[in-house]
Amino acid sequence: MSQLIRPAAQQAHWDEEADVLVVGLGVAGAAAALESVAVGAETLVLERASGGGGTSAMSGGVIYLGGGTPLQRACGFEDSVEEMFKYLMASCGPSPDELKLRLYCEGSIELYEWLLAQGVPFNAVHHFGVSGEPPNDDGLVYSGSERHHPFCDIAVPAPRGHVPAIPNQAGPLLMQKLVAAVEASPAGVRPDHRCTTLVQEPDGNVIGVVAEVFGEERALRARRGVILTTGGFIHNDAMLEAHAPLARACSVRIGAGGDDGSGIQLGMAAGADVLHMDAVSISLPATQPWSLKRAILVNGQGQRFINEDSYYGRLGEAALLHHGGRAWLIVDHEIFEKPTYPREIAAVGETVAELEAELDLPAGSLEATLGLYNRHAEKGEDPVFHKLSEHVKPLLTPPLGAFDCTTENSIYAAFTLGGLRTDVDSRVLDPAGDPIPGLFGAGRATSGLSVGSYSSGLSLGDGAFFGRRAGRNAGLG
Amino acid sequence: MSQLIRPAAQQAHWDEEADVLVVGLGVAGAAAALESVAVGAETLVLERASGGGGTSAMSGGVIYLGGGTPLQRACGFEDSVEEMFKYLMASCGPSPDELKLRLYCEGSIELYEWLLAQGVPFNAVHHFGVSGEPPNDDGLVYSGSERHHPFCDIAVPAPRGHVPAIPNQAGPLLMQKLVAAVEASPAGVRPDHRCTTLVQEPDGNVIGVVAEVFGEERALRARRGVILTTGGFIHNDAMLEAHAPLARACSVRIGAGGDDGSGIQLGMAAGADVLHMDAVSISLPATQPWSLKRAILVNGQGQRFINEDSYYGRLGEAALLHHGGRAWLIVDHEIFEKPTYPREIAAVGETVAELEAELDLPAGSLEATLGLYNRHAEKGEDPVFHKLSEHVKPLLTPPLGAFDCTTENSIYAAFTLGGLRTDVDSRVLDPAGDPIPGLFGAGRATSGLSVGSYSSGLSLGDGAFFGRRAGRNAGLG
Repeated sequence: MSQLIRPAAQQAHWDEEADVLVVGLGVAGAAAALESVAVGAETLVLERASGGGGTSAMSGGVIYLGGGTPLQRACGFEDSVEEMFKYLMASCGPSPDELKLRLYCEGSIELYEWLLAQGVPFNAVHHFGVSGEPPNDDGLVYSGSERHHPFCDIAVPAPRGHVPAIPNQAGPLLMQKLVAAVEASPAGVRPDHRCTTLVQEPDGNVIGVVAEVFGEERALRARRGVILTTGGFIHNDAMLEAHAPLARACSVRIGAGGDDGSGIQLGMAAGADVLHMDAVSISLPATQPWSLKRAILVNGQGQRFINEDSYYGRLGEAALLHHGGRAWLIVDHEIFEKPTYPREIAAVGETVAELEAELDLPAGSLEATLGLYNRHAEKGEDPVFHKLSEHVKPLLTPPLGAFDCTTENSIYAAFTLGGLRTDVDSRVLDPAGDPIPGLFGAGRATSGLSVGSYSSGLSLGDGAFFGRRAGRNAGLG
Repeated sequence: MSQLIRPAAQQAHWDEEADVLVVGLGVAGAAAALESVAVGAETLVLERASGGGGTSAMSGGVIYLGGGTPLQRACGFEDSVEEMFKYLMASCGPSPDELKLRLYCEGSIELYEWLLAQGVPFNAVHHFGVSGEPPNDDGLVYSGSERHHPFCDIAVPAPRGHVPAIPNQAGPLLMQKLVAAVEASPAGVRPDHRCTTLVQEPDGNVIGVVAEVFGEERALRARRGVILTTGGFIHNDAMLEAHAPLARACSVRIGAGGDDGSGIQLGMAAGADVLHMDAVSISLPATQPWSLKRAILVNGQGQRFINEDSYYGRLGEAALLHHGGRAWLIVDHEIFEKPTYPREIAAVGETVAELEAELDLPAGSLEATLGLYNRHAEKGEDPVFHKLSEHVKPLLTPPLGAFDCTTENSIYAAFTLGGLRTDVDSRVLDPAGDPIPGLFGAGRATSGLSVGSYSSGLSLGDGAFFGRRAGRNAGLG
């Protein structure tokens, strides 16, 4: 007998009921609840923690929005739905969901306005020089690789990272506003409710859940639908081993404790399909301040492997998934600068050969790499990896140094991107593509916009966007 | 309503019944059926094609066995369960199933003897110089990277590719013998039966299947268990996009038409978990004859990326998954040889610079790579990627040439490795790790020994091994 599914016939008694049950109160759950009540559905939100916020409240708070939002325009940037769509199609990993991306881009301005309506504040100031949340309360950043190869040749760059107005980490403010909006709404919030089981009829219809509340079991019936917004599975080692084993090497796992894959498992036990379960956002924040983009990143063979001006999410993915987590950032005396995120110096040398030997790289390998790089850098060019000219200069002035970017000694920050298969109406689908009646999902319990390479703000973005759609569709019944 | 699951209450009539239903008649299905009848269970095998064999019959017929089989010993090779286990743990991709690998190594000699007992013949002759089935009827080959870095330093090498005695492709002979054994057994074979639906009780118990037979529906009841041995999903584009999108670039998809993921989808719809759905065997047979291992393989940046003496399965995985399918095999006049598998010459040059330009590689990139390679090759060394000394010589004699190993112009042969989660008793498990009652699986419908990098013979091997366990356990009820 499954622990995750209870046949409806065995659930005689219900402790509580509503039209819609939302499982989890992060950004997707809050958005789902607000829209569900907006269409008139009696709504309950179950949260396993004692308060709302989830992983969203632990995040930087960057939300990926564009297509010409009022904030972009106020900061003097032009953008269009089409350019945003082209960037995301090219940058979100192999085989992203084109329909979801299209809808998201088209609905981006409206989502921004909805956030404003919930009380989330943004300052119309563009902050240049950081790839995530700014140290002050500026509201707009480049949060991906828009300005860099190959994307700058694919779509007109624009900054699309929208950051709520508070210095540094903005996730808490975002979620404080959204949770307050939920609490001010007719939706009921049930904290300390950990959903352990779905109640399912023989024809597949999901009609409720069983939750554990301080060791007691409570059964909650959903007249119209259950929405799973339970987050990803970065804290579930067995699931990581099964789907994204290399991610286990990451020193930082981004996620509230609830990101243990429970909602994905519940959905699968109910017969759901999953997508891109191997996809992980892996951030290697090695080039902050941006002046360090002038350094070169080399692997265990002393070879470069990416344009170093790429967004951290691309650096981390390349270094860990394709180069075994063996990487060093090579600087010379002239460009040396203290990294924003603490990072050890793995080696220093007066000559390339000395540095190479100290890093235990194959004899001559780093020399060959630097020789080629410097030869082109003299002309401000990088024909090998196409780093922007503004970040290209020869690395010649001794001493040379290497910042440690290996998984063992460096921050690699990871969270999972794969999850339940949903359609654009946030209905959870089975492997034949049919909706499982009564079951919806959004946020990192589902596969969303990014299915590989990452730009900051995509998860808060699709969590809010498809969370709202889940709430509306479940609420309408 | 799910297309893939029918509630038991809706299935009033059964057209036929047995203790055990085996779905699919490849190597796993044949092994399952033979063991099921061996323990006394009335057994039916449903095959969607008009005859048995499946993908197994289209394969090279290499079976990965070791630990000191009679064939290995007769050929003069020592091997042990421990060395075989160490090799497989290191070479089967990240996070393989240690328990399955251990059991497989321990049971390898017995599996070899079982194959003999089914009438599969092997000649006790080792064939050196090919990585798959030999052109003659020799019986033993190195079918992986046992002799090469890094594995030669991890486990004592031994050839473990056991090949049935027939020249060239041996899969047809293997399956001819196994299908004949099934037909001679009490098991009934039902060709032209495409299983479309599982019949499931509210508590999850799988009690039968619905099959389509020449457009008509037939319901078959299983008193003890249904065994899914339906193969992988290399012919299902939507599933490839969802789980292994890069594999779509492969020019050759290895699999019978039935490898469309149907059994994986049926299992998932019944609530099953899946593992390593992104894992694909990708073969790039560029270094046959082996003398071409002396060439170097470079990517779109003109860099080497692997020891070229690695098994084709490692070459293909590295080239496609980590280097975008941009690869060329660089030879000089001295080592030039006609490849066994037809391959275009992408460029020829009297100098490295000329070759580089013709391949449109960044200026100086191939020169830097060859310079470093040749410098060490003068001493017979390859400290960068650790190719065996016997394959290392400087590439200096003009003209230089490049064989095209890009996905666009070259054979990349792929099949999927991910699938249903099963335990060592071949029971299909749900996401909580609990067996779905009445449901078993084996072969490429399941996640088996290899969860990434591949050695030839592992799929026929684990298909037979865990197919037998499925048959025995389902048959005992």
